[in-house]
Amino acid sequence: MSELSHVDASGAARMVDVSAKDVTVRTATATGVVRTTTAVIELIAAGQLPKGDALATARIAGIMATKRTPDLIPLCHPIAIHGVSVELTPAAAEVGISATVRTADRTGVEMEALTAVTVAGLALIDMIKAVDPAATIDAVRVELKTGGKTGQWRRPADR
Amino acid sequence: MSELSHVDASGAARMVDVSAKDVTVRTATATGVVRTTTAVIELIAAGQLPKGDALATARIAGIMATKRTPDLIPLCHPIAIHGVSVELTPAAAEVGISATVRTADRTGVEMEALTAVTVAGLALIDMIKAVDPAATIDAVRVELKTGGKTGQWRRPADR
Amino acid sequence: MSELSHVDASGAARMVDVSAKDVTVRTATATGVVRTTTAVIELIAAGQLPKGDALATARIAGIMATKRTPDLIPLCHPIAIHGVSVELTPAAAEVGISATVRTADRTGVEMEALTAVTVAGLALIDMIKAVDPAATIDAVRVELKTGGKTGQWRRPADR
Amino acid sequence: MSELSHVDASGAARMVDVSAKDVTVRTATATGVVRTTTAVIELIAAGQLPKGDALATARIAGIMATKRTPDLIPLCHPIAIHGVSVELTPAAAEVGISATVRTADRTGVEMEALTAVTVAGLALIDMIKAVDPAATIDAVRVELKTGGKTGQWRRPADR
Amino acid sequence: MSELSHVDASGAARMVDVSAKDVTVRTATATGVVRTTTAVIELIAAGQLPKGDALATARIAGIMATKRTPDLIPLCHPIAIHGVSVELTPAAAEVGISATVRTADRTGVEMEALTAVTVAGLALIDMIKAVDPAATIDAVRVELKTGGKTGQWRRPADR
Amino acid sequence: MSELSHVDASGAARMVDVSAKDVTVRTATATGVVRTTTAVIELIAAGQLPKGDALATARIAGIMATKRTPDLIPLCHPIAIHGVSVELTPAAAEVGISATVRTADRTGVEMEALTAVTVAGLALIDMIKAVDPAATIDAVRVELKTGGKTGQWRRPADR
Repeated sequence: MSELSHVDASGAARMVDVSAKDVTVRTATATGVVRTTTAVIELIAAGQLPKGDALATARIAGIMATKRTPDLIPLCHPIAIHGVSVELTPAAAEVGISATVRTADRTGVEMEALTAVTVAGLALIDMIKAVDPAATIDAVRVELKTGGKTGQWRRPADR
Repeated sequence: MSELSHVDASGAARMVDVSAKDVTVRTATATGVVRTTTAVIELIAAGQLPKGDALATARIAGIMATKRTPDLIPLCHPIAIHGVSVELTPAAAEVGISATVRTADRTGVEMEALTAVTVAGLALIDMIKAVDPAATIDAVRVELKTGGKTGQWRRPADR
Repeated sequence: MSELSHVDASGAARMVDVSAKDVTVRTATATGVVRTTTAVIELIAAGQLPKGDALATARIAGIMATKRTPDLIPLCHPIAIHGVSVELTPAAAEVGISATVRTADRTGVEMEALTAVTVAGLALIDMIKAVDPAATIDAVRVELKTGGKTGQWRRPADR
Repeated sequence: MSELSHVDASGAARMVDVSAKDVTVRTATATGVVRTTTAVIELIAAGQLPKGDALATARIAGIMATKRTPDLIPLCHPIAIHGVSVELTPAAAEVGISATVRTADRTGVEMEALTAVTVAGLALIDMIKAVDPAATIDAVRVELKTGGKTGQWRRPADR
Repeated sequence: MSELSHVDASGAARMVDVSAKDVTVRTATATGVVRTTTAVIELIAAGQLPKGDALATARIAGIMATKRTPDLIPLCHPIAIHGVSVELTPAAAEVGISATVRTADRTGVEMEALTAVTVAGLALIDMIKAVDPAATIDAVRVELKTGGKTGQWRRPADR
Repeated sequence: MSELSHVDASGAARMVDVSAKDVTVRTATATGVVRTTTAVIELIAAGQLPKGDALATARIAGIMATKRTPDLIPLCHPIAIHGVSVELTPAAAEVGISATVRTADRTGVEMEALTAVTVAGLALIDMIKAVDPAATIDAVRVELKTGGKTGQWRRPADR
């Protein structure tokens, strides 16, 4: 089993030294879903929960949160971010969220992609919670990573 | 169906005026779960993924994120926060997360509780991702709200 | 002439003590304008500079900046914010911006309203600068204040 | 007309990928003006609105805001900043503001320079608003850009 | 010995609930000192390490940091701040720093006063470190607290 | 005596241009101490002031503050941070704090290391202040710097 790299010999948390890692182009894609009701989705479709703004607000929240990742996650390295896209896709009773982050730096950007998805989800819930206080964020996870020493990683089918 | 309160007549996002709302004691409890592997949970149990620090890091990240909620969620009001607790409970192949936030202010604190749960989950994933890159955040949702005009709200059994 | 209240006897900057001020409902409205080209406004009108998102991005940036005012302005007090609206109104070769902020606290919210207008303007320029690198922010100023000891203040016609 | 680069095919906002852009030395100079009264300028000249601190506070606010640009402008890339200077020049009934920002990175720094000017202006207004509540920020714009693919850009005389 | 209030029964950190505490006027004064060389102090006295700006920069940094206290200290409550003053007093080979913070809220402001002193000290060191890389921050401590259940507390002479 | 580099000809603060400096690996180690009582240290030793969490909270606060350095210190450059470790070592009536920061960038990281030490100290005081309101932060200083034009610098024995 691989060694956990965020802890030193005494078990204390530390931000691991990445000086020896190569600067390479790295990308990560994460996804998640906000489960709500058909009524909320209909409000989106009918433009009564004005689609542009509710989804735009969540999208912008996700993009901005990407840049706040090292402020939120204690041991995350502050890194350059070269590009971010956040997509929200309404379906029957849910909104799918996908975020892709790209950099050329010494560490991967999967935490940035996961942060974009979760904060977009939180912002969407904030927009709809007056109609559906029981909305849920589900299945937030990394789908694909590229770059770095390990190259491409794709989520196994059985997880 | 209740009216969405975050949008004005033209559909533009705005931070709604809460001046007319009463200052009352309000609480919210949210929960979620990080699904991982039995191997990771065993590392936690054996102290090889040093329990104190991995869970402590996630707990502190969740508490601190509570205070950043209005920075992350575009239309959230900045409010006083009187107390926050974040609990992480390891099980077979997952870690349950629960956060309770308390205030005495004009708006509810469910977004703060949801933010605490998700950021604690993100920080936990950051601690274990070298061992389990496929860890997932699931079932993030409000369980209980008290205070305010609507009084107590508890998640319905069928959601 | 009234005394400047942000400096002590020795001329050093300080955040003045507002403990003695009353908690009252206070509002402030500020306005400004981004001057650009008819071509940019036409792109907005034709939906080729997609209206929803460019204006929505600026609007959300303005609302979020309202909450960051005490982080940006050294001597501003951190206060509760009860409501914020930011409006962007395209005209011939410009976009008018108006922000209204409301609180019930011990200090006025004119700095918050001015910050909302300027950051909305900056975000709008960021959206259009590939088409018009010479866009300008003009006439950022307080139009109306209510509440507090001095009551209502309206910008004089000759300023 | 050049293509707007901040929007994808569906019109949704995104942070464009700059991976393909060269790392070059880039600078941007922006200017603006705070229009106030001769009385305020006289207070500055007489040291009664203590020059050092009022202007120093605005200058420091502008420098610090430069570093917050990606937190404020939703689609701005977080980049290295190699140097910032902010100058405030009192005149008859106004204070001129000029900011120059320098980097060696993949994107220009005009948004950083514009942010420095506007926040310095906001901080200056905060210092003088007890004396002049009608002070105005005007003519905030980029004067000069160097570096990057397009090389030097200077504001045209007719804008 | 009084009970530590930041930990729950299981030893986990939490932000304690202050709902039951009274809103009273509370103040705290903290002090500290930056020890440097007579040469640095002479540069300050001769205006060659321009007094206004080096001390003004440190003073403003201290005031602004006061507002960031809950962002920095994990279990600190976000509270209203009614006033802050930061004084820097050069002596033979050191600069004394004193900060007083005032609020009317449910918790004391000693952490805010200590944060103001330390960040002012850090900013001062940043200004002089090219001349004295060995400058030291010493004796950062609370001198006086007023308000709250315990009333006035003054540092004992033997500490 | 070396020239102060943070001020321009007119004495105004500016963020100096580091474009001409080399990107080299740079490290800095800073130390400090929180002086408290034997009773507090015994509570730590007995696990009644639960060691894991009190020290873990301070450690994480120090690591996170490292990343906030340019937000706190007005003229600090925002830079990449490659690694951070913060150690807390309880002794008779005090807790020693040591922080080491590593980067490969154009400026040194001594301000980052000093910020890590002071914020870890502040967070520790926040954890123990209910038991010892007179705890003091002492002797915060740089011990060792490596990298950059001047190479290794070690604190002289007489400072």
